[in-house]
Amino acid sequence: MPELRKDPIIGRWVIISTERGMRPSDFTMMEEKKKGGFCPFCPGNEGATPPEILCYRENSTKPNTPGWSLRVVANKFPALRVEGELNREGEGVYDRMNGIGAHEVIIESPNHSDTLSTISVKNFEDLLWSFRDRMIDLKKDARLKYVLIFKNQGESAGASLEHTHSQLIALPIVPKRVMEELEGAKAYYSYKERCIFCDIIRQETRQGSRVISENQDFIVIAPFAPRSPFETWILPKRHSCAFDDGQKHEFENLARIFSDTLKRMDKVLSIPPYNFILHTAPFNNGCGDSYHWHFEIVPKLVKIAGFEWGSGFYINPTPPEESARFMREVRL
Amino acid sequence: MPELRKDPIIGRWVIISTERGMRPSDFTMMEEKKKGGFCPFCPGNEGATPPEILCYRENSTKPNTPGWSLRVVANKFPALRVEGELNREGEGVYDRMNGIGAHEVIIESPNHSDTLSTISVKNFEDLLWSFRDRMIDLKKDARLKYVLIFKNQGESAGASLEHTHSQLIALPIVPKRVMEELEGAKAYYSYKERCIFCDIIRQETRQGSRVISENQDFIVIAPFAPRSPFETWILPKRHSCAFDDGQKHEFENLARIFSDTLKRMDKVLSIPPYNFILHTAPFNNGCGDSYHWHFEIVPKLVKIAGFEWGSGFYINPTPPEESARFMREVRL
Repeated sequence: MPELRKDPIIGRWVIISTERGMRPSDFTMMEEKKKGGFCPFCPGNEGATPPEILCYRENSTKPNTPGWSLRVVANKFPALRVEGELNREGEGVYDRMNGIGAHEVIIESPNHSDTLSTISVKNFEDLLWSFRDRMIDLKKDARLKYVLIFKNQGESAGASLEHTHSQLIALPIVPKRVMEELEGAKAYYSYKERCIFCDIIRQETRQGSRVISENQDFIVIAPFAPRSPFETWILPKRHSCAFDDGQKHEFENLARIFSDTLKRMDKVLSIPPYNFILHTAPFNNGCGDSYHWHFEIVPKLVKIAGFEWGSGFYINPTPPEESARFMREVRL
Repeated sequence: MPELRKDPIIGRWVIISTERGMRPSDFTMMEEKKKGGFCPFCPGNEGATPPEILCYRENSTKPNTPGWSLRVVANKFPALRVEGELNREGEGVYDRMNGIGAHEVIIESPNHSDTLSTISVKNFEDLLWSFRDRMIDLKKDARLKYVLIFKNQGESAGASLEHTHSQLIALPIVPKRVMEELEGAKAYYSYKERCIFCDIIRQETRQGSRVISENQDFIVIAPFAPRSPFETWILPKRHSCAFDDGQKHEFENLARIFSDTLKRMDKVLSIPPYNFILHTAPFNNGCGDSYHWHFEIVPKLVKIAGFEWGSGFYINPTPPEESARFMREVRL
């Protein structure tokens, strides 16, 4: 059973996936790249993955056979397990609990060569709906507190399979970074009685220099203090703490602007590896007034070394005003 | 002038080094490796670096000529500048100040092929003294609040030059991760009136399963909730918040155990890339009772993607009890 362990000093939870138990020789072998060959995410190979949890497919087709446009399956090597009790326990200064949760893979397209920049806006919208559908379903499990949705695009951004996919991890705890955002936003709200993200949107709209694009419902900006060159945020203009509360026209406009943003990034940076993470409120947490959901996209351009994540201190060689200008002005 | 910018939501400061101003094409070119060729850190090439700030050298030799065993010079491409005023200013919801500080390089050996695992214990001790000497000197500058000392070993850990070196960045702010540790330790102290690190040392010594080695003054452990496989901490047994308060016998014993730890890591993991970071108290901060300085070493074995540092959530496939056993039992 995987285990969740808490760092007693700074309170960060970590999954120790004891079952994968990697030995030293496993790491030295990891450098070999696996390209080509069998792909478990391609149509016809549905039997190579766990069965579908959610699937958007042609009406006449059967589950776990071809005919789908998007499939959600359990991760074959899950970091967390759905079955069991949390069994929270202490051990001297330390705290741990069982690694209860869900770890799912969203296969974004049947075509092996697609990326999120090449799929249609309609398929992108379906991807957003699948995020929402899974969140709403997982919310019913009272043991779970948070759903982390993210994508690793490209091998150097951590993708272990080439076929385009996102991931979902449902957790019995709230990740530290999310907690920090919630607390920061709450502190601002109690001081000003305004949402800090709404204030940021107002200021960015007024200043313009860090705005990449906008439509009726969304704005795309290079944040004021980015950790990494070309870090990009997509924020809804309407104040809302939870992604899954979105309206239909909002998902449409999000698909449109998200797709456009990734296309710009591919053009400006020659198809870079990247990560994106959905930042949304934890289940039932009462931060409705102060928090504001959004996506953060970070292309992996510089070697973000252990130094940066060990110190919490970042050196960024590209001012966001410059990256925004490149992203805004590129011709698609 | 580089700029320090604060994320308004979570309060993290970032250096935007406007002078290096990297454009999109700079990133696509970065993949080319520079190996061999001219090394500015080799003896005879002293003129290729800024002049020595500190140097340990043979008595009869002149500054900025060969004959040295360790040299500290300013970084030729500094992330921060020594000259000028901080000029703290707000801009709507945002805060910024000038990027005042120091960015220095500690060249750890004259031999191009050395690593910290191959230099003598005596030279390792000199390295520790150089860290201390520079900290004590930089403390005199009232604009500075913190000295961050770290090493990137190996290209994939962020080293841009092969010749073995550490780096020092003196900052007018305290990095977020350090602040979190200080606050966590302070909260524990005010609840228990004990240092949490001292409690950890006691518990680890009693349990034994995560202890890698120890000597009279230091203990080396795999932490309970490591972010990454084979993460390793070196802690002084004597409670002390500041590295630069160390006694002579402590620096001797630290050099001995630090060198031994890196040798073990090289043997177990086949000379992995790694980062280490010195965690020590900020200048004049009054955390003497609650904080406890230490080194954190993180080998770069898995692709820590943007996902991990973006979410503050880590999945570690190797339990620390296993990594400690490998590190403890390896024959040198």
